[in-house]
Amino acid sequence: MESESSEPTRIMVAVNESSVKGYPHPSISSRTAFEWTLAKLVRSNAAGFHLLFLHVQVPDEDAFEDMDSIYASPEDFHNIKERDRIRGLHLLEYFFGRTHQYGISCEAWIRSGDPKEVICNEVKRVRPDLLVVGSRGLGPFQRVFVGTVSEFCVKHAECPVITIKRKPDEIPQDPVDD
Amino acid sequence: MESESSEPTRIMVAVNESSVKGYPHPSISSRTAFEWTLAKLVRSNAAGFHLLFLHVQVPDEDAFEDMDSIYASPEDFHNIKERDRIRGLHLLEYFFGRTHQYGISCEAWIRSGDPKEVICNEVKRVRPDLLVVGSRGLGPFQRVFVGTVSEFCVKHAECPVITIKRKPDEIPQDPVDD
Repeated sequence: MESESSEPTRIMVAVNESSVKGYPHPSISSRTAFEWTLAKLVRSNAAGFHLLFLHVQVPDEDAFEDMDSIYASPEDFHNIKERDRIRGLHLLEYFFGRTHQYGISCEAWIRSGDPKEVICNEVKRVRPDLLVVGSRGLGPFQRVFVGTVSEFCVKHAECPVITIKRKPDEIPQDPVDD
Repeated sequence: MESESSEPTRIMVAVNESSVKGYPHPSISSRTAFEWTLAKLVRSNAAGFHLLFLHVQVPDEDAFEDMDSIYASPEDFHNIKERDRIRGLHLLEYFFGRTHQYGISCEAWIRSGDPKEVICNEVKRVRPDLLVVGSRGLGPFQRVFVGTVSEFCVKHAECPVITIKRKPDEIPQDPVDD
C-alpha cells in the first residue's frame, strides 16, 4: 500500500551525557531510547527512517570555579565554549557510529540551554514526525527534586512523543544517576 | 544489522466508536492514531509488525431505560450484551479491513469496563512493545470534565505509549465530540 519512495519518517532523539561517567559516554536512558528505536521501530527498514539527534548542553555556571575570576578573559570564555562543543561532538559520535552501522541516514546538532525548553523549540523548528526521549523512570518523590524533561515534552512538544524508560537491570544504585 | 526473522514489533492500538456517528464508525482520534501508525511506523515493512486492536466498551447503565425494569428478564440482559458485542465487532471490522489491505498480521478483542483501567490491565497481560492511543487534544478546561484516557495511559501503562492527536482540520465544532 505504501511506496518506499515516500519521505522517510523523521525521528528526533534527544540525547545527553552520562551523569556518572561524563562525556563522551551517553546516559543510560538516552542509549536505551535510541536502541529501542532501532530495534522496535526502524527494524530492517533503514531507508524508511531518518534520525535527528539533538544534544542540549546545560550552561555550566561553575565553569570558572577553578580560575580566578579577575583574570577570566574573553579568551577563557571562548576556550570553555570550545571545550564544551568538542565534548558534545564526542557524545554525538557514539550515536552517529551506531546509526551508520544500521545504514540509516541521520543528522545531529548541539544547542545550549534548558533541555526541556530547547527540545520543544527544536521540535517546533525542525518538525519531526516523532520525538523519542529517554526517562529515568523516577518515582514521584525523586521527580520533585530533579524534574523530568520527558514529562514536559509529552505535554508541550508539538509532535507525538514517546518516552522510553531504562530497563530495570540498568538502573544504577541511585536512580537519579544516569 | 537486524534480521527480519526476529519477532515482529507488537503494537497495541486502543480503538473506540465515534461519539457523534456511533457504531460502527471509529472515532476520529482512534482512526487518526491508527493511520499514523501505518504511515509513520509500519510503512512498507508489513512483516515487521503485528497489530493488537483493543476495543473497550463502557457498560451502558441506561440500557434498560426504554423497558419496564419489572419485566427485564435474564434474556433481556443477554440480548443487550449480544447487541453490544455485535456493535463492537463491526467497529473492529473497520480496522481489520485496513490492516488486511496493508498485509499486516493482527488480532483484536473486546473488553468491558473503564477504558483507561482496562487498557492498562491489558497492557500488563499482553505485554505489547508499544501502545498507541488517540487523543482529542483538549485544552485544560475541557479536560477537567471529560478526563483523558491518553494521559492516564502515558502515566500508568507498563510499556512505551504514544499519543496521537487529531489533525486540526478534523476537530469537530465541539472538540469533546469524536
